[in-house]
Amino acid sequence: MSLAQKPTEPPFERVAILGLGVMGGSLARALAELDDPPHVVGWSPNADERAAALEAGAVAEAPAGWHEAVEAVDLVMLAAPLRACCDMLVEVAAVTPDDTTLSDVASLKAPLARAAAQAGASDRWVGCHPMAGSEQSGFEASRPDLYHGARVWTVASPAASARESVLHALWRSVGARPEAIDAGRHDALMARASHLPQLASNALATVLAAAGVAPQQLGPGGRDATRLAASDAGLWRDLIEHASPELAEGLHALAGAAERLARLLEEGDLDGLEELMRSTRAWRQS
Amino acid sequence: MSLAQKPTEPPFERVAILGLGVMGGSLARALAELDDPPHVVGWSPNADERAAALEAGAVAEAPAGWHEAVEAVDLVMLAAPLRACCDMLVEVAAVTPDDTTLSDVASLKAPLARAAAQAGASDRWVGCHPMAGSEQSGFEASRPDLYHGARVWTVASPAASARESVLHALWRSVGARPEAIDAGRHDALMARASHLPQLASNALATVLAAAGVAPQQLGPGGRDATRLAASDAGLWRDLIEHASPELAEGLHALAGAAERLARLLEEGDLDGLEELMRSTRAWRQS
Repeated sequence: MSLAQKPTEPPFERVAILGLGVMGGSLARALAELDDPPHVVGWSPNADERAAALEAGAVAEAPAGWHEAVEAVDLVMLAAPLRACCDMLVEVAAVTPDDTTLSDVASLKAPLARAAAQAGASDRWVGCHPMAGSEQSGFEASRPDLYHGARVWTVASPAASARESVLHALWRSVGARPEAIDAGRHDALMARASHLPQLASNALATVLAAAGVAPQQLGPGGRDATRLAASDAGLWRDLIEHASPELAEGLHALAGAAERLARLLEEGDLDGLEELMRSTRAWRQS
Repeated sequence: MSLAQKPTEPPFERVAILGLGVMGGSLARALAELDDPPHVVGWSPNADERAAALEAGAVAEAPAGWHEAVEAVDLVMLAAPLRACCDMLVEVAAVTPDDTTLSDVASLKAPLARAAAQAGASDRWVGCHPMAGSEQSGFEASRPDLYHGARVWTVASPAASARESVLHALWRSVGARPEAIDAGRHDALMARASHLPQLASNALATVLAAAGVAPQQLGPGGRDATRLAASDAGLWRDLIEHASPELAEGLHALAGAAERLARLLEEGDLDGLEELMRSTRAWRQS
């Protein structure tokens, strides 16, 4: 397929999606609902998930091995946890021709960019990070509208910029809002906008648990502030291992902010507290 | 009205609700939807709010002065910010007969208990604190189902225990789950379960704002964790002024927890991080 000659959507004719959980399953379901859907070959290490995706009509084929799934496709989309994406990117690059575009939906992009470089595939890799997901997991938690309105960050080397444009068209076809970003800037942003709120919620939960507060005693606000504390520890381990230094910096800054609030409270500086609350309200509503 | 002879709900025939914002307005709307609703007289210092409550059918009358509203009612429910509730409790006690039950929905109970004692009205005051609310304010943000399923803490002296039972019946009639508690224990619990999540959210928001993160760049988890940062600073000022010492202790503990997480991250102690996340997940899902 020539990228330049195929501006119509969907921009790929044959797509392999490796991983049929929430992210991969939702992309398959969304593509299947297009007027002129691509031929999607799905693969999951889980046989039940492959059968479920076939039965739901989300994929046209679901072979038992991923080698078979990536044969003669235009695009391979990796939809696995971070570490698995890194490993598979190298393996898939080794067995696919240069005109096959490689992509992924992992939440961090610098580790994937390194894996692409290691595989000699930087010129055909376009990393993607959709800001969408679910606390639940597996194909059963996937849904065709998961990406509707969602920001999708994309990362590509200059040599892959034409492929990046085609990926943008793919994401737009399923209702998402793609935007290009540098891998380092993306990961620093995620350290603050995603990883820091996660660990802040864990920190708050440890304090409440140690004080003997039961989750049922929280009001709606307390429940929101600790909802992330229930996130899957295994999935986060990978992300935290590769987190940018901005995450630890953010935790130190959070500790400083909590101490500053305690001091205002102990000094009875109600004006200072009110001013701080007004400033965060203005930020949150901006 | 004799309390003992009227076990059917609604347990009061004539109710004055002073304050028609989210809390008072929602109670009025909920009572208006009962099969056999009490006669509700509403009052707000804001004429537009009085007119809106009348128009919505939430109240039967809405006089311009609260003195008129509390004439010949069985129950006066104060639904104003904390300080206003304390002040009004004393004023309303002075102009109502001993058989009028006094109540309030302020978020702290010890300051109200002191005001009731000061007014010589401890034997007819039942403090209430529904664990429900909204970041928005005013009658327009009120809704009839606000109290559905919500815990409502109640505080009363032994001399007011019969009245407390009737208040429980009132709250049950609008779908809430009342439970008696001691004022001091209640306020310590709130310092942790409500005020601490509030200030933790403010602390996180100051860090994100200082790092240049826009609220639009947050994922769903980050939005939840910072939702409380948009709360009304003026309303919280009162609560924070009267907060229990457990709030400052909790902020110090939060700072300690954030530093501990930063250290685990900097030392690459992924097992320690995963274990901490597993423990907060177990707590949150308990």
